[in-house]
Amino acid sequence: MSEPALTLDGWYTLHDFRTMDWAAWKLLSSDERQAAIHEFMQYLDKLNEVQDRKEGSHALYTIVGQKADFMLMILRPTMEELNDLENEFNKLTIAEYTIPTYSYVSVVELSNYLAGESNEDPYQNPYVRGRLYPILPKTKHVCFYPMDKRRQGDDNWYMLSMEKRKELMYSHGMIGRQYAGKIKQLICGSVGFDDWEWGVTLFSDEVLQFKKIVYEMRFDEVSARYGEFGSFYVGNLLEDQNIEKFLHV
Amino acid sequence: MSEPALTLDGWYTLHDFRTMDWAAWKLLSSDERQAAIHEFMQYLDKLNEVQDRKEGSHALYTIVGQKADFMLMILRPTMEELNDLENEFNKLTIAEYTIPTYSYVSVVELSNYLAGESNEDPYQNPYVRGRLYPILPKTKHVCFYPMDKRRQGDDNWYMLSMEKRKELMYSHGMIGRQYAGKIKQLICGSVGFDDWEWGVTLFSDEVLQFKKIVYEMRFDEVSARYGEFGSFYVGNLLEDQNIEKFLHV
Amino acid sequence: MSEPALTLDGWYTLHDFRTMDWAAWKLLSSDERQAAIHEFMQYLDKLNEVQDRKEGSHALYTIVGQKADFMLMILRPTMEELNDLENEFNKLTIAEYTIPTYSYVSVVELSNYLAGESNEDPYQNPYVRGRLYPILPKTKHVCFYPMDKRRQGDDNWYMLSMEKRKELMYSHGMIGRQYAGKIKQLICGSVGFDDWEWGVTLFSDEVLQFKKIVYEMRFDEVSARYGEFGSFYVGNLLEDQNIEKFLHV
Amino acid sequence: MSEPALTLDGWYTLHDFRTMDWAAWKLLSSDERQAAIHEFMQYLDKLNEVQDRKEGSHALYTIVGQKADFMLMILRPTMEELNDLENEFNKLTIAEYTIPTYSYVSVVELSNYLAGESNEDPYQNPYVRGRLYPILPKTKHVCFYPMDKRRQGDDNWYMLSMEKRKELMYSHGMIGRQYAGKIKQLICGSVGFDDWEWGVTLFSDEVLQFKKIVYEMRFDEVSARYGEFGSFYVGNLLEDQNIEKFLHV
Amino acid sequence: MSEPALTLDGWYTLHDFRTMDWAAWKLLSSDERQAAIHEFMQYLDKLNEVQDRKEGSHALYTIVGQKADFMLMILRPTMEELNDLENEFNKLTIAEYTIPTYSYVSVVELSNYLAGESNEDPYQNPYVRGRLYPILPKTKHVCFYPMDKRRQGDDNWYMLSMEKRKELMYSHGMIGRQYAGKIKQLICGSVGFDDWEWGVTLFSDEVLQFKKIVYEMRFDEVSARYGEFGSFYVGNLLEDQNIEKFLHV
Repeated sequence: MSEPALTLDGWYTLHDFRTMDWAAWKLLSSDERQAAIHEFMQYLDKLNEVQDRKEGSHALYTIVGQKADFMLMILRPTMEELNDLENEFNKLTIAEYTIPTYSYVSVVELSNYLAGESNEDPYQNPYVRGRLYPILPKTKHVCFYPMDKRRQGDDNWYMLSMEKRKELMYSHGMIGRQYAGKIKQLICGSVGFDDWEWGVTLFSDEVLQFKKIVYEMRFDEVSARYGEFGSFYVGNLLEDQNIEKFLHV
Repeated sequence: MSEPALTLDGWYTLHDFRTMDWAAWKLLSSDERQAAIHEFMQYLDKLNEVQDRKEGSHALYTIVGQKADFMLMILRPTMEELNDLENEFNKLTIAEYTIPTYSYVSVVELSNYLAGESNEDPYQNPYVRGRLYPILPKTKHVCFYPMDKRRQGDDNWYMLSMEKRKELMYSHGMIGRQYAGKIKQLICGSVGFDDWEWGVTLFSDEVLQFKKIVYEMRFDEVSARYGEFGSFYVGNLLEDQNIEKFLHV
Repeated sequence: MSEPALTLDGWYTLHDFRTMDWAAWKLLSSDERQAAIHEFMQYLDKLNEVQDRKEGSHALYTIVGQKADFMLMILRPTMEELNDLENEFNKLTIAEYTIPTYSYVSVVELSNYLAGESNEDPYQNPYVRGRLYPILPKTKHVCFYPMDKRRQGDDNWYMLSMEKRKELMYSHGMIGRQYAGKIKQLICGSVGFDDWEWGVTLFSDEVLQFKKIVYEMRFDEVSARYGEFGSFYVGNLLEDQNIEKFLHV
Repeated sequence: MSEPALTLDGWYTLHDFRTMDWAAWKLLSSDERQAAIHEFMQYLDKLNEVQDRKEGSHALYTIVGQKADFMLMILRPTMEELNDLENEFNKLTIAEYTIPTYSYVSVVELSNYLAGESNEDPYQNPYVRGRLYPILPKTKHVCFYPMDKRRQGDDNWYMLSMEKRKELMYSHGMIGRQYAGKIKQLICGSVGFDDWEWGVTLFSDEVLQFKKIVYEMRFDEVSARYGEFGSFYVGNLLEDQNIEKFLHV
Repeated sequence: MSEPALTLDGWYTLHDFRTMDWAAWKLLSSDERQAAIHEFMQYLDKLNEVQDRKEGSHALYTIVGQKADFMLMILRPTMEELNDLENEFNKLTIAEYTIPTYSYVSVVELSNYLAGESNEDPYQNPYVRGRLYPILPKTKHVCFYPMDKRRQGDDNWYMLSMEKRKELMYSHGMIGRQYAGKIKQLICGSVGFDDWEWGVTLFSDEVLQFKKIVYEMRFDEVSARYGEFGSFYVGNLLEDQNIEKFLHV
């Protein structure tokens, strides 16, 4: 009988990856570019205000390699707000000079595999709330990848007993703990929302830690036998005061 | 020997996903955009009239993320009508400012796995007719995904006996029933019409229910061992009175 | 030792799928469009003449959904003639307003799995000739899909004995016979010519029959264990007198 | 322990597939097109001169279906020469009116599976030299496809012993020999050069022979269990004197 | 329990593959092209200066076939520097005339599978440093391909014991040693950075050696059972003094 993991679900999340159409961007006059940057900064200011009020959060990172030039990641309490912000961005002048390359729709998720039992309402627990409705850290680097649990022949995660899954996830979590202080991890669930089951966003001031944790975990049975991974994106923090430089041509 | 499930088949269905070419749309004059919106609204009015006469149905939702900006889903008694409406849409001015990103051709389907035996003609049964020729609900959210039953090594749905399939589908259906009142589900069959075997459209006022039902079902053997899933699309209701705002630039 | 099925091979076949670039098509003046349609009709007239002489055949269908707007399917005695007709179409004005989306190169094929033994030359048998060099029926609907026989682990069609394959194909053929009168089936072989091994074209006046036959066959071992399927295309007859309406903007 | 087949390696080979951008080509004036054709013919003349000196070879075929409009295949003693010729072609006016659709980089290869033992230097053997540095035949038709030997579960070619591989290849070769006189086969190795391990180019005056040989071989264990195939391309000889007609619009 | 290989990590690496948009490039005036080349040469001069100071390295190769026209590969101490150089290149005039076709983000990696035990800090070892922070050789040819270790059914590298993996890698390394003097190999790790786990770059003055080593290794169990390979790119050294000729139209 079906015994799914229970989850706690927080803010809805959109990861939006874009490349710049530099050739077209250069065709604008300096004034037009300045106006477009100004309009984009106003859009970000609104996001900042929401974040200051802790009613949502967001992060802006450049992405290394051809997969994207930057990623804007937005968290909001409702899917409608995410959609409105996406459409608002798409109508900005700067958006005309970007090419969408990948996006991910999900919701911040905590699973109960590692949880203790309790009678209290977890949504009232301040620690839990801090993880479900997080203000994203401003680390120097970000890493994003989507993933599935495998359902293939003898390696079928969803046919394992809850007990077995808990045991495997416990050992998996132990590896993660060794990176406490070095990496902040955000798990987003996307079953029913997007093509992969989860999206993992890692934050760190030391980019090499991304490689270390993902590689170490790959030897753990949860990943080794049951992990299916999508594309990996790695990037660097793009602070508001550096956007003009980033967009300067 | 081949013992297929029997199906009842209702209205033919086209799910049509599009992104907006906002950059080109902005190049139009305000009057030209207004005229294009007006023409699109007239097209929708015709669909509404057909729906009022219960001779078909349709739904319009915005889609979150880069996969599409909106989905127009149309149900009609014949494949020719679907095709005509598709071509009519494609010739609208608004269509010049959309980019097709995905479509799905199918027919509303009821399977007999869960049915009792009866001598009556099911196509005369009012309950069955209501499900085969449905007026789509106007819920706040929609979720669409195509799927196959797996045929892979030991996990081959089509090599199972009818009895075994019935048993598995019964247990699967039990999960679905727990979501009655929260989710309305429309199953469309597309064997012979499109690349996947079924398209599932879920309607709900609570977007998180999509994640809950799909995740819970994934632990059920029917999905865990036999389900293959395509892309997932999630979105928000776009009511006629909000189209102008959606298209405002 | 290799014991392939023997085949009889008839006319070479090109399935050519296109979408219309409606936005560009609208940019033409009414006179220019009329001239392009006239030129296209002349091209079709030439095909009709060849068909009247039974020196080839062709069919033109609109396709439902975004995969294509229409399919032109042409049968000819030589690969050179197919290629010439393809190039001739590509040089028409109308072709400038189409976008190629898929094509399939094959030859009409009869396999000996279901054949009796005989000493006569099958290429002289009128029934066989009628199937190898068919004048395509003008049914209301068409369904096309390419397929392979699977070679995967224990499900390897090409490692089965001829006897076993014959037995399986016999049972498979029995299902097909139940659809006699409802569906006309054209099998084209494409080993060495295109990416899949066969292309199946079904013709029917009742579009639901496509779903019924493909679904029923999927439970038969030949498909269940050994069938790999490509994209499915479904469409409606586009008669010459309706082309102008189809292209009217 | 690793016991690879030994290979003899001849001329480096580039298969270059292109579609024509007919719409853009038509926009040129008749004189401009004539000049572009003339420039292209001069390019081909240089290739012909090299071929006359037996310092390389090439072939030009039209391709049936949407995958390409023509294939130019060039053989040269060094990778630098191939690259130079590719770049030279890309800088021709005609190239501006083509769209690259596929290419294949490889080297003419003979394997020792079927070879006898000998002490002589095979590179001095005239028969071997004729096969490693071939002047391509001007048959009416060509067929090209890339392939891999499978490494999947129990069907892992690279884990077989040399003895077993030799035995399997011998039987495979026996099928090929039945087509002597009907088909000329060129095997090119691309391990380390391109995505597939081999590219097979078949030449014949009878296009149906391509289907016959590939289909018959598919029932042989080497293909049935160990063959993985890429896209198949089939086409017709485009002789220099017919290029102008081919490009006439 | 998870027992990952330990790795030493050196310079961050970007492989950036591009095709030239020759048609657009030709539209520039001769002076404009000259200015763009000059600007590109200045960019390369800066890279050369860094390389002269041994604070990074880079390589520029043309690529054979349609996958790319050239590859620029850059090594730097930080991910930020890589990103800055990528953005700087993208803003050059020449970049407007290139089309990105593939990129790879990784870090130079040495694994401890083949290492002896030692108490010294390997990052202080001059030999190790020379391999982690390499000045790329100027060989005539380059070969690049990404790869994974397989996790599939019984062929799951990550479920093998450290001992077994060491044994397999030792034998694998033995093959590599036979190519010492002929091939220089650079292994970059990309777990957490890009879609494949490793990127292999081979340098040689003899292009055929790439085929020999990759083919020979494929028969070794590490590759035969556990190797999954992405696209292969092969090319020729593009020295600064030949750039003008390469770009001449």
